[in-house]
Formats: sequence, structure tokens, C-alpha cells
Amino acid sequence: MRPYIIINAAMSADGKLSTRERRQVRISGADDFARVDRMRADCDAILVGIGTVQSDDPSLTVKSPALREERLARSGEENPVRIVLDSKAETPVTADILRKGGGVRIIAVSEEADLEKVRALSEYADIITCGRDSVDLQHLMEELGRRGISLLMVEGGGTVIWSFLSQGLFDELNVYIGSMIIGGKTAPTLADGEGFVDDTIFPRLILDYAGQMDDGLLVRWKRRE
Amino acid sequence: MRPYIIINAAMSADGKLSTRERRQVRISGADDFARVDRMRADCDAILVGIGTVQSDDPSLTVKSPALREERLARSGEENPVRIVLDSKAETPVTADILRKGGGVRIIAVSEEADLEKVRALSEYADIITCGRDSVDLQHLMEELGRRGISLLMVEGGGTVIWSFLSQGLFDELNVYIGSMIIGGKTAPTLADGEGFVDDTIFPRLILDYAGQMDDGLLVRWKRRE
Repeated sequence: MRPYIIINAAMSADGKLSTRERRQVRISGADDFARVDRMRADCDAILVGIGTVQSDDPSLTVKSPALREERLARSGEENPVRIVLDSKAETPVTADILRKGGGVRIIAVSEEADLEKVRALSEYADIITCGRDSVDLQHLMEELGRRGISLLMVEGGGTVIWSFLSQGLFDELNVYIGSMIIGGKTAPTLADGEGFVDDTIFPRLILDYAGQMDDGLLVRWKRRE
Repeated sequence: MRPYIIINAAMSADGKLSTRERRQVRISGADDFARVDRMRADCDAILVGIGTVQSDDPSLTVKSPALREERLARSGEENPVRIVLDSKAETPVTADILRKGGGVRIIAVSEEADLEKVRALSEYADIITCGRDSVDLQHLMEELGRRGISLLMVEGGGTVIWSFLSQGLFDELNVYIGSMIIGGKTAPTLADGEGFVDDTIFPRLILDYAGQMDDGLLVRWKRRE
């Protein structure tokens, strides 16, 4: 009953999402930008982690006016539902994701979240509480399904992507691989977190598509059942 | 006067060379294995870092008997020159790279290396000393050029690859991208080390080739001048 989940990210040729200082890097180009905007317009909801909100402050709105109009006509909203995975309710009430563009916002928090912060955020977003000290993704996905979200796009960062990948909560992994090296032992990668150690449990993928886009490469993997 | 340098590595879909415990993972399949064996046979020398010697103990020999024979007939040696980048002369004298297969070995050390260790290693390998506390790669590459090495393959790990990439010491970067996720904030990646922070100095690449191989993807980047 969970949504169809597409993880979407851009990394350097060496697998980094940004620099070790977590400074955003323009990894892809105009064609990939348009592709991602189209995907955002097509999906019911977009999810990011609190780390991404804190470091990049993205609005996650649909950028193309034509796509926004199309979406508005089709679904009644210009933008997909925007979701922050935020165990401790640390999203600033001034965050662009809460302030920019029309549409529903959801902050997913754990039972540990400060109630004052939750109350403040509830003026801007629906709150879903699930999980004790961190958000229970399985339950969150089921709840999103119940709310009519059937296509979810997960946009990062590396810790959130790791959580979805490691729990098998994905159907596609779209990776844009940029034509540059960022490097760095501590730079954020496509899948951070704990990491696997036993190769019998690595999530296995099926290569579904690979082709040049801008100066880089767009790769689509599907989850191997 | 430096050799033509091909960096060759296999990483998971999320850019990891191995698990956070540095346990070797079979990332590629039979076709890529054969491709790498052919590349080893074709090159004049292969270089790895001391970290790779310590964690994987590779022999770096050419595996195919047919390729070995072909190489022997062509160059007088079954295997390319095998080089360890080893500032402190920590290569164990029992390492497979020193003991297995015919051919010349070189240990590149810095002036800081323990003389006793260097003496012990000199029974099995030529020693090149260059650089004060770490090996000076520019000088090492020139020295290799003088010794007639015109095609060098760099096989890792992430720290060594970072050193070559960050100094612009490469012509091609061949990456096999495996159909699995390894994950982990601290797992070794294709390019570790310090990392870049300023996007005006990221080494830029040109996508030269991408195509399916085994269950994964072989990507060849070239250095953009």
C-alpha cells in the first residue's frame, strides 16, 4: 500500500553529492534540470531529509510555469506535497520549503520531537508522528499511501537515501552522474548512514537505462526483487 | 615525459570501493574481470597504494595464461611492472605482489621511510625514493617515464586515486559501476583524501563511453584539458 518510490539524485563521477563542507555543487546541466522539474511535476509528493533543508534550504517547487499550470489543472495544486523527514522537528519555520509556492507540506517527526517546535511547524505543515526516536519509514510510507500519494520522489540527502535503500523502500534509483570529481573522505555520498558489511544483504539493482545527458550520464536502476 | 595514465576502479552504484570494514566486495562480473586482465596485460606498469596491499594483498598478476604468454613473447615479462606507493615502506615482505608471478616490482617510498624496512624490501623490489614525507607523484611519474614505462594503470584505492585525480595526473578514468548498494558514511569511495571545496577547481571530465557490462555499467571518462 506504499507509494511507488523513485529515488533521484545527482552525484559526481566519484559518488559525492556535495563537498565535504556540504556546499551545494551544480553537478548536472540544463537538460537534467528540466528532467527533474518534469519529474517533480509528475509526482504526488517529494521527500527530503532535515539535513538537506538545513544545508540547501530548497523550495522543491516546480520551476517551469507551464508545468505548474498543467499540474494545477490536473490536480488542483501547482506543487507536489512536500515532505521533510525530521525526527526532532528542527525544520526552521522560515524554511523555503514551508514558505515558497502553493501546496501541502508534511513534516514527519518522531515521538521524541519537541512539542513546542511541532506546534510552531503545524501552522505551516501537516504533522505526521510515527516512530519512537526516529521516523518509522515503513509506517510513514503506508500513511502516505492512505493519503492518496501513489508516486513519491525522494530527493536526498545521502542519509535519507541510505534509509530508503537499506529498508528496500524504493522501486527506482535515478542517478545523474556529473562530469567532475569532488573527492573527499568525508564528503556526503549517494548512500551514507551505517553501510552494509555483508555482501549477502547488499540491495541488488537491475540496470534499466543509461545514456548521456548534458555533459554527464543519466542512469536508472530498478530494485531487484 | 610522464606515462599515459589510466585510472581503473570498480565501485558500487553509490560510489563505494568496499565496505566500511574495507572488506573486498565482488563488484563486477566475468566480462569486466576479463577486461581488466586484458588491460593489465597491455600496460607497462600497474600501481596501487599501500592501503590496498594491506587490506586486499593483491598479486596484480595477469590471470589468463594466454595473455601471459602473449605478454612474455612481446616484452620478455609475463606481468607488467608492479608498483606500490608506500611512503613509509610498510609493504610486508610476504605480500603477494612481491612473491607471486614473474616481473619487476617497484616500491616508491619517501625520504621518511625506515631504512631497515627499505633494505628488506630491496631484496624483492627496486626502490624509488622521491618526496620528503610522502611520495612526490610528479617526480615519480617522470622517473617511470625515464624507465620506459609509457602506459600506467592505477588500480586504487581511493586515497591513491584521489592523489592522481587531484594533481591532474591522469588521462582516462575507467569506472565499472556495479549493480549494488554498499552504503556507509565511512566506506572507501572512488576518490577519498581531502576533497575539493571550490567548484572552480574540480577536475572536469569528458564522457567518452558508457555501456552495459555484466550486470553493471562501464564508464570511461577522459580528462578535460
